[in-house]
Order: sequence, then C-alpha cells, then structure tokens
Amino acid sequence: MKKSLGAKTLAQPAPAWVVGSYDTQGKPNIMTIAWGGICCSQPPCVAISLRSATYTHGCIKERKAYTVNIPSAALAKEVDYIGIVSGRTVNKFGMTKLTPVRSVLVDAPYIKEFPVVIECKVLHIVEIGLHTQFIGEIVDIKAEESVLDEKGMTDILKVKPLIFDTGQGVYYSIGERIGKAFSIGKLE
Amino acid sequence: MKKSLGAKTLAQPAPAWVVGSYDTQGKPNIMTIAWGGICCSQPPCVAISLRSATYTHGCIKERKAYTVNIPSAALAKEVDYIGIVSGRTVNKFGMTKLTPVRSVLVDAPYIKEFPVVIECKVLHIVEIGLHTQFIGEIVDIKAEESVLDEKGMTDILKVKPLIFDTGQGVYYSIGERIGKAFSIGKLE
Repeated sequence: MKKSLGAKTLAQPAPAWVVGSYDTQGKPNIMTIAWGGICCSQPPCVAISLRSATYTHGCIKERKAYTVNIPSAALAKEVDYIGIVSGRTVNKFGMTKLTPVRSVLVDAPYIKEFPVVIECKVLHIVEIGLHTQFIGEIVDIKAEESVLDEKGMTDILKVKPLIFDTGQGVYYSIGERIGKAFSIGKLE
Repeated sequence: MKKSLGAKTLAQPAPAWVVGSYDTQGKPNIMTIAWGGICCSQPPCVAISLRSATYTHGCIKERKAYTVNIPSAALAKEVDYIGIVSGRTVNKFGMTKLTPVRSVLVDAPYIKEFPVVIECKVLHIVEIGLHTQFIGEIVDIKAEESVLDEKGMTDILKVKPLIFDTGQGVYYSIGERIGKAFSIGKLE
C-alpha cells in the first residue's frame, strides 16, 4: 500500500553538478544544481534548470553557453559551498581554489579539477515556473584520462560522481555494479 | 590534462526509470528511460525524453499524462527487460508479472511493485531532435512506507534506486553517505 506524499520534487537519483558560465564582465562563475539530465541523443543535449533569481541564470541568458562540471565525491565540500553562496557577491573560484579554464568551443569556463566536463551551447530556453530550463547542445565532453575505461569511455566507478537525494538533502557516492543494460533483462 | 571525447551523452549520474502510460485502447504500457530529471520546483515538474518511434511517445501525446516509476535495484532485470522490448508487440506488464494500478489523479497507470511513483500531467512538449521532451507537472508522489524516513520523506538508502552509467551502459546501486547538503560546504 502506497502513501501519498503530495506534489514534491522527489526523484531518485538526482545529480549534483556544477554549472560554469561567464558574466557580462567576463568573470567566470559557478553554481551547483540538482535539477538536470540528458534530454536528447541526437543532437546530444543536456538540460539544466535554474531559478531566474540566480546569478548564473542571467549569465547563461546573455552568453548562450554553459558547462556542466561533474565532480568526484572528493569534491563534495566544494560542490556544497558553490551551492550555498551567490556569484553576485562571492568569487567562488577564488574561495574554493578551483581553476577556471576557458573553453575554446563555447563561451563558458569549465573547472580544471573536475574529472568530467560537458561544454554546451543553448538550444532552447523553456520558462516552466520558478525554474527556467536551459537545453544545451553538447559540443564536447572532456574527461581526465584517469576516469576512462579501456575503450576510452568514462567509467562511473572511476569518476565517483555525487548523487543527490532530494528527499533528505544528502549527497551519496555511487555503489556496487548491478548489471549490464540491454543484457540482464533478456529472457533465457 | 583533459581528453576530448567528442559530442556524447555522457553525464553521471543518470536515472533508470520506468514510464507508465495508457495507449489509445486503454492498455497499460511501460518503458524504461534514462533521459530525465526534475526540472522545476514550483510547480514541481519532472522531464522525460522519448524517441518519437517509441510506443509510449504516442500514448503520452494522446493522454497528456504519465507516471515515473522508480525501481529498487532488486527490480533491475525487470527494468532492463522493459527497456529492450516494445509495448507495440509485447504486454510488458504480463511478461514481467508487474501490476498496473490506475492512478486516480492522472490518466496513466503506475506500477504497484515499485517503491516510489510520480504521477504527472503534461505541461510542455519540447521537440529537441531524435528525442521529444515531455515536461510533466508532478501531481503526487506515492511511496511505500518501508522507504520513508522518520519525517515521512523518501530515504534513498531504503529506495535503493538504480543508477545508470551512460558511458558503459551499466546499472549501479546507491553508495555510501557523503554528507548533508547546504551544510558540509559551510566555511567554519
């Protein structure tokens, strides 16, 4: 028997990603988000949702570009700090000692210390309500060689991304391998 | 030094969710997706992306409603099977021995055996490319009492959701607790 919890933003898993952008003065800015996900395979796109009150919202509207920076769990404190303070008043790169790298493909900075970064150009802007959704075309993925498998793809056990529980507001790490997709469900 | 991997749909973590809908004849249908995420807090919304070739795509366009069913890792084989075959030719509920429950709030079925279900009414449809994104307003969350914490919210360690690694096409479980959001990043 299921219990009704009401209309809430509970969905497991949610990501904990850091979005990079430039402001109108060209200052690199970063913000932590949990509302986002891949939304198209061709063209490859990733969606992120931001409140219009955030500093990053204005930056992305202006520059039409952003990066999604995927942290390893070892960066959890920095990720959380980046989600607490505003880029309007704080230089988050300076405070976290993280390093902005200018993307040569999109008008946004990515974070050197994060294992995987996604460079995006804004394709659609959807005003939903409190949040605006930016759908960005993925122009390139860049990853540290240390998180790649033998085929050159990212290995989630090496990336060790953060997973956000929207129910309790807690970060988790990735767990054990359950099985291969398009495989374990095949009927014998 | 980062390596360029090209324009790919690599983002960690991605969910493994099962979307429920009714077809034009009222037959309950289910489909596994990894492209989705929460996209707005007010109104609470969750986005899912489907190829127009899928059976579910037509069902949702017709009924303007769907459910997002969050599996526990113990349901991984069923989740994978639901992602392999098409509802056009197979009765996936029958084959998996899962039970459709008619939602009283939206025109879509949810899955009795899944610990958390999200009932949605379609608010926006965004044609992106190969995938169409359906933005659904969350009308209610229903969860088994066994996955709730003492405050009545879902606890991800009890839900034990699947996490999909888009890089290797592998399902993982949730791992260890890293820390509390809006807390571990506070400067002392």
